[in-house]
Amino acid sequence: MKSKLAVVKIGGNVIENKEELSSFLNVFAKMEGLKILVHGGGKKATQVLKKMGITPKMEGGRRITDAESLEVVTMVYGGLANKTIVAQLQALACNAIGLSGADADTVRAHKRPVKEIDYGFAGDVDSVNATSISDLLHSGFVPVFCALTHNGEGQLLNTNADTIASEIAIGMGHSYETTLYYCFEKKGVLSDITDDNSVIKNIDSKTYKELRENGVISEGMLPKLENCFHALQKNVHKVCIGDISMIHSEPDLYTTLTL
Amino acid sequence: MKSKLAVVKIGGNVIENKEELSSFLNVFAKMEGLKILVHGGGKKATQVLKKMGITPKMEGGRRITDAESLEVVTMVYGGLANKTIVAQLQALACNAIGLSGADADTVRAHKRPVKEIDYGFAGDVDSVNATSISDLLHSGFVPVFCALTHNGEGQLLNTNADTIASEIAIGMGHSYETTLYYCFEKKGVLSDITDDNSVIKNIDSKTYKELRENGVISEGMLPKLENCFHALQKNVHKVCIGDISMIHSEPDLYTTLTL
Repeated sequence: MKSKLAVVKIGGNVIENKEELSSFLNVFAKMEGLKILVHGGGKKATQVLKKMGITPKMEGGRRITDAESLEVVTMVYGGLANKTIVAQLQALACNAIGLSGADADTVRAHKRPVKEIDYGFAGDVDSVNATSISDLLHSGFVPVFCALTHNGEGQLLNTNADTIASEIAIGMGHSYETTLYYCFEKKGVLSDITDDNSVIKNIDSKTYKELRENGVISEGMLPKLENCFHALQKNVHKVCIGDISMIHSEPDLYTTLTL
Repeated sequence: MKSKLAVVKIGGNVIENKEELSSFLNVFAKMEGLKILVHGGGKKATQVLKKMGITPKMEGGRRITDAESLEVVTMVYGGLANKTIVAQLQALACNAIGLSGADADTVRAHKRPVKEIDYGFAGDVDSVNATSISDLLHSGFVPVFCALTHNGEGQLLNTNADTIASEIAIGMGHSYETTLYYCFEKKGVLSDITDDNSVIKNIDSKTYKELRENGVISEGMLPKLENCFHALQKNVHKVCIGDISMIHSEPDLYTTLTL
């Protein structure tokens, strides 16, 4: 039987707020079994860019990462956000080790080809090094990934944290029974976006198709769910979407996705 | 017999210059056997502080690390400098893993007590986690440390990179025959500061005392050498000071320190 492995992704909004981050890390530190954390960086990068007199460039909600933005993103994601989280987890007796995809060659990507939009140093994931990550897990470390990858030729790349989380869950799926947790500020996927308690508890491929056809799922949630079903099709056991309460051991109000 | 382990420290000036850094990393990547890299961050942190409208505060060549300076130092040392080096080493087939002292709980420190000067979030090293570092080495990783430590209670601390290097060499000295390399822009310890070729090839405790008494060694070099002899007294096999040419396998012009 495969060992269980939890891959937990926290969004930028959780990191922004010191108290929310602290609550989350308390819960995460107590999670039993093998686990991996993946975090975004979010607004802090935009704040630092502005402070440094660099105008943040976005296109359809995605950052255009030119050379100087990549420097800032590397500082904020790989430095400030990652090390702050690691130090706090250590204080909670969780033996965290912070990683970018370059560290231990864990996540390789290629620079996104220029089509209509030039996203600059944005990376699309090619491969996850399950051996390196397993070695870290077996040494008793808890890997904490920031949203940076590398191309194997010395270039760091800014990569969507949701994608890193799902690719890691997929990459580890051959050796582990992986569950992917997307942790954000809502209690789950909502059937009524104005009602925070209208959480859809279970979504499978069939109900997903129906929900999509009926226009129930909001536009912002669609790419997230696409990502989730992609992971499920590629060896990930289960995907959960909700707020931090979902990673308590008790069954609670959140969305579970299965094929 | 103990395995050999090289702990190599590169100074901020080597990192500043892209070509020098690249030359250094090429040499470091080819070094055989177990190895650890420790790097400073140097001028980049000062540049970023200034760009963000924060006045860098120094006292006797040491940074006063207030809360906002600590954020910048964490970004530059742990993020930009560390990840850039790691990505470049990966391109050279050296399986680097970047670490602060918080990662894998490798280096713990305490906030320097306030005496005449309040250095802010500056850390003095308490302990090195040889077990964690050994686990990483045995997994085939090459640890790359930046100049950050933690206090085990969630606080990151800015810590002198020379000290981190010597403390790691000392901490690993129980299990390994450690050699500590201080790599900087000069060819070694000079007997005549105006003559770059006046390298003193060997210094032991006795000649060190004589050189000091005769005022041969420059003031800036004194704390470095104190640090080196401290390491030698605590289980470090050998200390070498010089430029990157010293880590070629051939004996070359550099300073070797022994007890």
